[in-house]
Amino acid sequence: MKRCFGSDNYSGAHSRIIEAIANANNLHTYAYGEDEYTEHAVHTFKKYFGENVGVRFVFNGTAANVLSIRTITDSYNAIICAETAHLYFDECGAVERFTGCHFITIKTINGKISINDLNSISYKFGNQHCPQPKVISISQPTELGTLYSLEEINSIANFAHENNMLLHMDGARLSNASASMNLTLKEISFDLGVDVLSFGGTKNGMLFGDAIIFKDNSLLKNFKYLRKQGMQLASKMRFIAVQFDELFHDDLWLENARHSNKMASLLKDRLMNIPKITIKQEVETNVVFAYLPIEYVDVIKNETPFLLWNEKESLVRFMCGFDTEEKDIDDFICLLIKTLNND
Amino acid sequence: MKRCFGSDNYSGAHSRIIEAIANANNLHTYAYGEDEYTEHAVHTFKKYFGENVGVRFVFNGTAANVLSIRTITDSYNAIICAETAHLYFDECGAVERFTGCHFITIKTINGKISINDLNSISYKFGNQHCPQPKVISISQPTELGTLYSLEEINSIANFAHENNMLLHMDGARLSNASASMNLTLKEISFDLGVDVLSFGGTKNGMLFGDAIIFKDNSLLKNFKYLRKQGMQLASKMRFIAVQFDELFHDDLWLENARHSNKMASLLKDRLMNIPKITIKQEVETNVVFAYLPIEYVDVIKNETPFLLWNEKESLVRFMCGFDTEEKDIDDFICLLIKTLNND
Amino acid sequence: MKRCFGSDNYSGAHSRIIEAIANANNLHTYAYGEDEYTEHAVHTFKKYFGENVGVRFVFNGTAANVLSIRTITDSYNAIICAETAHLYFDECGAVERFTGCHFITIKTINGKISINDLNSISYKFGNQHCPQPKVISISQPTELGTLYSLEEINSIANFAHENNMLLHMDGARLSNASASMNLTLKEISFDLGVDVLSFGGTKNGMLFGDAIIFKDNSLLKNFKYLRKQGMQLASKMRFIAVQFDELFHDDLWLENARHSNKMASLLKDRLMNIPKITIKQEVETNVVFAYLPIEYVDVIKNETPFLLWNEKESLVRFMCGFDTEEKDIDDFICLLIKTLNND
Amino acid sequence: MKRCFGSDNYSGAHSRIIEAIANANNLHTYAYGEDEYTEHAVHTFKKYFGENVGVRFVFNGTAANVLSIRTITDSYNAIICAETAHLYFDECGAVERFTGCHFITIKTINGKISINDLNSISYKFGNQHCPQPKVISISQPTELGTLYSLEEINSIANFAHENNMLLHMDGARLSNASASMNLTLKEISFDLGVDVLSFGGTKNGMLFGDAIIFKDNSLLKNFKYLRKQGMQLASKMRFIAVQFDELFHDDLWLENARHSNKMASLLKDRLMNIPKITIKQEVETNVVFAYLPIEYVDVIKNETPFLLWNEKESLVRFMCGFDTEEKDIDDFICLLIKTLNND
Repeated sequence: MKRCFGSDNYSGAHSRIIEAIANANNLHTYAYGEDEYTEHAVHTFKKYFGENVGVRFVFNGTAANVLSIRTITDSYNAIICAETAHLYFDECGAVERFTGCHFITIKTINGKISINDLNSISYKFGNQHCPQPKVISISQPTELGTLYSLEEINSIANFAHENNMLLHMDGARLSNASASMNLTLKEISFDLGVDVLSFGGTKNGMLFGDAIIFKDNSLLKNFKYLRKQGMQLASKMRFIAVQFDELFHDDLWLENARHSNKMASLLKDRLMNIPKITIKQEVETNVVFAYLPIEYVDVIKNETPFLLWNEKESLVRFMCGFDTEEKDIDDFICLLIKTLNND
Repeated sequence: MKRCFGSDNYSGAHSRIIEAIANANNLHTYAYGEDEYTEHAVHTFKKYFGENVGVRFVFNGTAANVLSIRTITDSYNAIICAETAHLYFDECGAVERFTGCHFITIKTINGKISINDLNSISYKFGNQHCPQPKVISISQPTELGTLYSLEEINSIANFAHENNMLLHMDGARLSNASASMNLTLKEISFDLGVDVLSFGGTKNGMLFGDAIIFKDNSLLKNFKYLRKQGMQLASKMRFIAVQFDELFHDDLWLENARHSNKMASLLKDRLMNIPKITIKQEVETNVVFAYLPIEYVDVIKNETPFLLWNEKESLVRFMCGFDTEEKDIDDFICLLIKTLNND
Repeated sequence: MKRCFGSDNYSGAHSRIIEAIANANNLHTYAYGEDEYTEHAVHTFKKYFGENVGVRFVFNGTAANVLSIRTITDSYNAIICAETAHLYFDECGAVERFTGCHFITIKTINGKISINDLNSISYKFGNQHCPQPKVISISQPTELGTLYSLEEINSIANFAHENNMLLHMDGARLSNASASMNLTLKEISFDLGVDVLSFGGTKNGMLFGDAIIFKDNSLLKNFKYLRKQGMQLASKMRFIAVQFDELFHDDLWLENARHSNKMASLLKDRLMNIPKITIKQEVETNVVFAYLPIEYVDVIKNETPFLLWNEKESLVRFMCGFDTEEKDIDDFICLLIKTLNND
Repeated sequence: MKRCFGSDNYSGAHSRIIEAIANANNLHTYAYGEDEYTEHAVHTFKKYFGENVGVRFVFNGTAANVLSIRTITDSYNAIICAETAHLYFDECGAVERFTGCHFITIKTINGKISINDLNSISYKFGNQHCPQPKVISISQPTELGTLYSLEEINSIANFAHENNMLLHMDGARLSNASASMNLTLKEISFDLGVDVLSFGGTKNGMLFGDAIIFKDNSLLKNFKYLRKQGMQLASKMRFIAVQFDELFHDDLWLENARHSNKMASLLKDRLMNIPKITIKQEVETNVVFAYLPIEYVDVIKNETPFLLWNEKESLVRFMCGFDTEEKDIDDFICLLIKTLNND
């Protein structure tokens, strides 16, 4: 399939990632994360996220989210998040199944929960009939591509901590947020009060692999058992580790994220010139949400895949990736114009 | 670390596997297993295991075992297996946690359960107080490197089916069994009555990835939800698929397995000449179990890692892999002789 | 404590229930539900709910709800219900923990979900990333004391069945609905398309015990294992059975329910005359919701308990029971007038 | 059914228990365990088990066992117990399902595990692949009616504590142990190092209800959520509480237990005179295990129920209860003699 706008995991990996794997494919090393590659990658993460963080690798983003939550909750806890949170909506119930936790969801317009939302919930702390709120989970950027401001995250973190809750951040595309906000990964996460972070690699040019980063090492003690029990202990862990290490080397992560953000911005500019298409909202990262008349969706998707986000609203999603090229956008715009005008 | 005998996942991947990944790293394709690479790999599996089998890929062997069991049980079921079964002993309780099932374990001498063992269990079918036996799980080869004969597997399968149970085979190293028995993968699994098979790739030269193979397609219907909920849905699935496809191409799997078996056999022959070492049992696959005086274990392991299997018995495990070379064995034998004679 | 309006489980049991237990306390019988008392009670249920229903007893309402759902779902399913549903809000996450299922909740004004609500949900049937909707759960009466009409239930049932879902009804106070609507228990449940019903006994005069009623026997086959695994198999089951049997004898259930409904109606009439109190909504069963100025809540509750339902809205709940007497209402109204006028 | 030897839950409740319930059936009180009856019963328990213990009530013995374990473990822990432990064998997998824990079972001759057994297990503390042993669970008396000596329990407790494990005691029939050993309930449990105790009421004359007793209050903090989530929070809790209070009043528990023990002893004496019957072992509590030729089992059971414990061994169980009368034994011996001689 030619390059399309379906998702940032329709792409392969960055060529440097493949090379890094090939370079690590070398003699023997300890299995199950006790190897020097993993140690080195953890060291690299500390340079980006702070010396005190605890870092562990898992296979995918679902696992990063589920094991993040599992580590900081007991089964009678509740998680507060947006109704659109991947954690809630897109994990086929993995959170409930593996943690036992209960969701309290918030309807939002743009994927972001606000302090007002949090204040409107009736918290039944100490009431034995009710799951006990323990985690607020936000996605940065959100599933709608929007960004929380520093102040917004900080106030949510404060709210969480004042109520004996913890803040989880789903950072499947945190690199794109960092690139967009022109702030370091640490400045937009732990510096604002995040307690646990799912950090995505797959969507930013890796083959597979995500990281869980804990604010400090104290939560790592029993994590190894939870990871193994969660079927997420990679035997040849070095091959996740070296991908991340390469991603941070010479800031490949940032280059990839900046590029995909820029491509989305370009795509949006081009889409704005097409009369039958309406951009839903400001493009802040690597995704464009737009309204496209429903009767054209299938025919265009069959040619160049993208996502029909909400059929009733005729809302579609165009995702750009590290490998999107200007020519891909040119071609797609041509296709759109041709199809929409054919009518 | 130089090549050692610690485990068949201390190695990297076969160079052809890396090449296959690089070759598939090409433009876009559908994510989450809906791509043409996955379809092709499934097709390849059917050639080896039978046209009617259902095949799905997961990240690792733990997941292959757990999701195999999850698909064919309800939470009130019991699983019968050897006390040494990886499923029971080495998954940190993942089976219990994710399936809810109960284990009925059998003590064995060599990792193999027998019809006598199965006959000696008191089955409480229909008794509401007792978990209902539903699965017999055997490993081929066993965790002790031994092999069930065709007759043994067949009789266990018959026993299972006569009692409305199913037979699961943990084939993390099934390739080694096939190579050793000089029989096809199908002849030593589905032809004998196996219902669900965990088929390992990582231990035979892949980077990561295992397959679950169902006797027929009927169990696949809801499997996709169980896999996603089990955190095992790879977004860039093609990169598991092409590894397997390459493994089957020109029978690389068989070449690898034959080689590691041969190396184990050679290692055993050499070990037999060392007076302080006693071979535990016939070497049937790619592993040698031997008794090594406990006082030497650490010093040798520090030089060239292997596994202290049972400290009380002073029993150690030497595992050979697709990449073990004769020179590795020569060097190791030298080390052993030198260390043991130094005394 | 004198009789109050805290909940219909602040009361003891009806005296006839205690007598029935005493009368069954007689020699020996089979344990775990294989006794003649249980058989007889099941027979009685069939007279009220239809000859084909399957009936099983559990200890409490939480278990009736959880095991109802567990029996008709797999762990990757979703349950659709009102945000106020006891099942979602008041079981401390027991549903998620024991079934693994995911909740899709609907905000409502009066506790009732509508066909419009159901139509507004985006169903992702067949999408492996999303929990698969399988159950719509409604409470009759709702937790807010309101009643669904026959047409409303029927249309929800039809919607469920057209979408391959099942309808669960939480009937913890179904007797009050039946009494209020002047229709039989069967007419307001299975005749309308209910598939599984939690039928409450404790709130209508029993010591303890709830029933799960399945539309037909087909779901009973494995229920016994789920109940035992759910810690809900009573050894001396006869003592739940005889309570239900007595409840149905001479329609004690109906007498109790009519009485508590009538008392709530009376209480409402009296409350309407108190200027500082506003009745929230029509009283349809045995509960009155009213707005009471927040500053008086504690002092009155300390004298005669009731429930502060929503502190922010200053909304309180007064629940009447089978044992509420007119004098209790008189006394309470006096207390209210005295306290509210004291200001 | 006339009184038989099937189980100590074939009986009803002691008449004083029914009276206690009737006496508590009086006006209103707080629901869900916040009532004065529950407080009083907890106070009574402290007199028997020590001032520092924490006490909570649940519906049945399964729940007492499961919630005991749940409170002191995480899902990656392992429980060590005898293969005959009720916890392992007779709860339909409730422990695995609700706690996620893994069982390591020990084969025994008489239901008792020994320090030798515990020493023979290979503990993989700290190994991420293996469930981490956290609880040793023993039954006193065992499911075979045998008793651990004080020294035996004490040494198991010490072993547990030295290895950072806790000792759980399944005391479903602890009253019988206390009566038999002529020691207080505290002397045979917490004084010996027990950390958590399941204390049975149903089998010693109650209608329903079991208690969980923690060595100290520290574990109670989150227990309320676990109990509710475990579907074990009784709304009209007072009716469990008053049963226990009555059981301790004037030492009814002890009178009942002494009586049932005495009846078992008498039964054994009488059985010893029947040539075709062999007593399996010393009778230490209220149960007699004996070998009865298999061909007679059904015909006798149909007349007067008892339990066929192990068909292959032709081993049967005769259980006496608080309500067993000498005449019941006379009649049963007559039946046995008549049936066995008829041959």
